[in-house]
Amino acid sequence: MTTTVNAYLATAPDAPLSKGTIERRDLGPKDVLIDIAYAGICHSDIHTARNEWRGTTYPVVPGHEIAGIVAAVGPEVTRHKVGDRVGVGCMVDSCGECGPCKDGDEQFCTKGSIDTYNSTSYSGEFTHGGYSEQIVVTERFVVRIPDGLALDVAAPLLCAGVTLYSPLKHWGAGPGKKVAIIGLGGLGHVGVQLAHALGAEVTVLSQSLRKEADGKRFGADHYYATSEPETFRTLRNEFDLILNTVSVNLDLDRYLSMLAVDGSFVELGLPENPLSVRGFSLLKNRRSLAGSLIGGIAITQEMLDFCAEHNIGATIETIDASQINEAYDRVVASDVRYRFVIDAATFAD
Amino acid sequence: MTTTVNAYLATAPDAPLSKGTIERRDLGPKDVLIDIAYAGICHSDIHTARNEWRGTTYPVVPGHEIAGIVAAVGPEVTRHKVGDRVGVGCMVDSCGECGPCKDGDEQFCTKGSIDTYNSTSYSGEFTHGGYSEQIVVTERFVVRIPDGLALDVAAPLLCAGVTLYSPLKHWGAGPGKKVAIIGLGGLGHVGVQLAHALGAEVTVLSQSLRKEADGKRFGADHYYATSEPETFRTLRNEFDLILNTVSVNLDLDRYLSMLAVDGSFVELGLPENPLSVRGFSLLKNRRSLAGSLIGGIAITQEMLDFCAEHNIGATIETIDASQINEAYDRVVASDVRYRFVIDAATFAD
Repeated sequence: MTTTVNAYLATAPDAPLSKGTIERRDLGPKDVLIDIAYAGICHSDIHTARNEWRGTTYPVVPGHEIAGIVAAVGPEVTRHKVGDRVGVGCMVDSCGECGPCKDGDEQFCTKGSIDTYNSTSYSGEFTHGGYSEQIVVTERFVVRIPDGLALDVAAPLLCAGVTLYSPLKHWGAGPGKKVAIIGLGGLGHVGVQLAHALGAEVTVLSQSLRKEADGKRFGADHYYATSEPETFRTLRNEFDLILNTVSVNLDLDRYLSMLAVDGSFVELGLPENPLSVRGFSLLKNRRSLAGSLIGGIAITQEMLDFCAEHNIGATIETIDASQINEAYDRVVASDVRYRFVIDAATFAD
Repeated sequence: MTTTVNAYLATAPDAPLSKGTIERRDLGPKDVLIDIAYAGICHSDIHTARNEWRGTTYPVVPGHEIAGIVAAVGPEVTRHKVGDRVGVGCMVDSCGECGPCKDGDEQFCTKGSIDTYNSTSYSGEFTHGGYSEQIVVTERFVVRIPDGLALDVAAPLLCAGVTLYSPLKHWGAGPGKKVAIIGLGGLGHVGVQLAHALGAEVTVLSQSLRKEADGKRFGADHYYATSEPETFRTLRNEFDLILNTVSVNLDLDRYLSMLAVDGSFVELGLPENPLSVRGFSLLKNRRSLAGSLIGGIAITQEMLDFCAEHNIGATIETIDASQINEAYDRVVASDVRYRFVIDAATFAD
C-alpha cells in the first residue's frame, strides 16, 4: 500500500522538470509523514537532475531542503507528533550502529547513509526528495524547526545551513578566530551569518565587490575581491579558517597562502577536476586542506536552534513549482539572492 | 675576527664534497661555540649540495643534525655552559618577536627563520652547517642533549626526530589512536619509535615487507606492503593519522581512503610535483591533507627529553668524513639502516 502524491520530476538529463506523481510508502512504526510546506533549490538538485555527477536514475524528484508539518506518525514514534514543525535534509537513513553513526556523523556511515533522493534505501525503495506534497521519513532523520524560525527561510538551512555550521564548529570558529568565506551565494550568505553569530571575525572573498553591501549586512567585517591580486598580498598568513562554498577549481596555492599557522582551507563542494596544491603551501604554517560534507543529525538540530536564537535564516525568493526550470537556469547563472524556495502548495496546481 | 675550522664543502652541483676550511664568527654576547662531535646526513643535505632544490649558493657546508659539546659561551649566555652536551638542528635564528616565534613555531617566523646552512643571517653572514669541527650559534637555537642520550644517536634526532615528533604531538598521537608511518627510512624508523612510545597503535606502510622485522623491533604493531593492492582495501577508513616520510608523489586518493573520520594525512617532505587529490577523498570522512615542517625549539627540546626517557635514538652507521660522498650515493639508493652520522673528529684528518 502506498499513497500517490504530486511532485516535480526530472525524467532525463536534458528535459525540463515536469509535473507528475510518485508513491510514498505507508507509515512504518517509526515513520513520520510530513506535509511539505517549502522545498529549497540546492545546486546539487540541478547536478542530479541534469546527470552532471552521473549516476542519476530517472525519474527522480530532487529536493533535500525540506520544511513542513507533521501529518501523521507511526505507532513507535516518540520524537515528533502531529502538527510539529519539522525539517528533512540530505539524508533519510543510516545504519545507526557504526562508529560514525554513533558519533553523530551519519553522513559518514560505513554502511552508507541513504540520500533523500536518487538513492536506494536499505529495503530497496528508491528515494524521492522534497519537490512534492508529502514525504515519509524515519523519525531519526526528522529534525525540529524551532518556533522562532519561519518554515520558508528555514528550508535552505537543512542543507546550506548545516553544510556551513558543521565545519565552522568543527574548526573552532569563534571569538579571536579569523574566518573567510569564499563566495556569497546560497551557502556563503548563510555561512557569513553563522560565523558572525559564533563570534568570529568574518571576511568574504568574492570575485567582485558587487555584493559587498549585502555581505556586510549579513555580518561580514571585511569584503575583498579575489579578482584583485592585491587581495592575496594583503591577506597573506591571515586566516585561521577558509571555507570554500564555490565548487570550482581555484588556484589553491594562492588561497592557502592566506592561512596563518595551523590554518585550514575546507572544501564544501566537489570541483570538477582534482585539487592541485604544492607541498610547500601545506608545510609552510602547518596548513591543512580539508573537506566537509553536510553534517550529522544532532548538529543539524543544533544549527536550527542556533539560527532561531540568533535570528538567522536564508534570504529567499519564493517561487511556484511551475517556475522551477527557470529558477534552475538562474541558479546556474548565479542570478539569485540568495536561495530559491518552492511553495509546496503549488505542486498540486 | 673569525676562526678558521676544517669542514667538508659542496662546491658545485656535480662535484663531490671536498675538504676545506670555513670561517666561524667570534662569539657575540649570546653566542655558544660548539665542538661538534657528530653530524647526521639528512637527504636535505644532498638536495642542497646537488642544487636539486635550486637556490644553493656555493661553496656550502651541509649538516643540520649536530651534536657536540659547548666549548665557550658569550658573556650574556645563561642557558648553556662550557662542557654541556648540546645539539643544533635546522635553524640557527629567527626574529623572536612575531606571533609564530612567540608561540614556539620559529620555523614559521614571519620575518623568515635562518637555516643552519645555505642561508643568509640577519647580519648578512652566510651560514655553514655541521660538516665541520665547530659552529657558533645564538643560545636560543642550542638545545640540551640529556645525559641518557649518546651524542651519535642523538644527532639525527635534531632534524629527523623533531620532524616526526612535532606532527605526532600536534595531531594527538597517543593511546587509542591509530597512526601509520609511510616509509621506514631515516625519518620513519624514528617516527615508529616515537609513535609507539607515545602510546599509539602504529602501522608501517612500506613498499615491501623487506624491513618488517626491523619495523616490529622499532615498535610497529602492524606492517603492510603498499605494493599489494589488498593493503588499501584492508585498511580502508582505518587511521587517525598518516605521516608520509617519503618525498615522492604518491597516489594520494588511495592513501586518503585509509583515513577514518577526521583523519589527517601529513606530508613531511616536498615531492617534486604538486599534490593532486580528488575533492571527494577529502569530503568523505572530513579528511585533511596537511603539511608539517620540522618543529620549533621548545618542542625539539621536549623531543630530546622524551627520547632520553624512552630510550629512543636513531639507528646509525658512523662514517669518517672521507666517506661522505659514498654515503650520499647510498642514501639516494635507500641503502642505509637507518642514518649516516659523520664522526666530526675526522674533519681534521
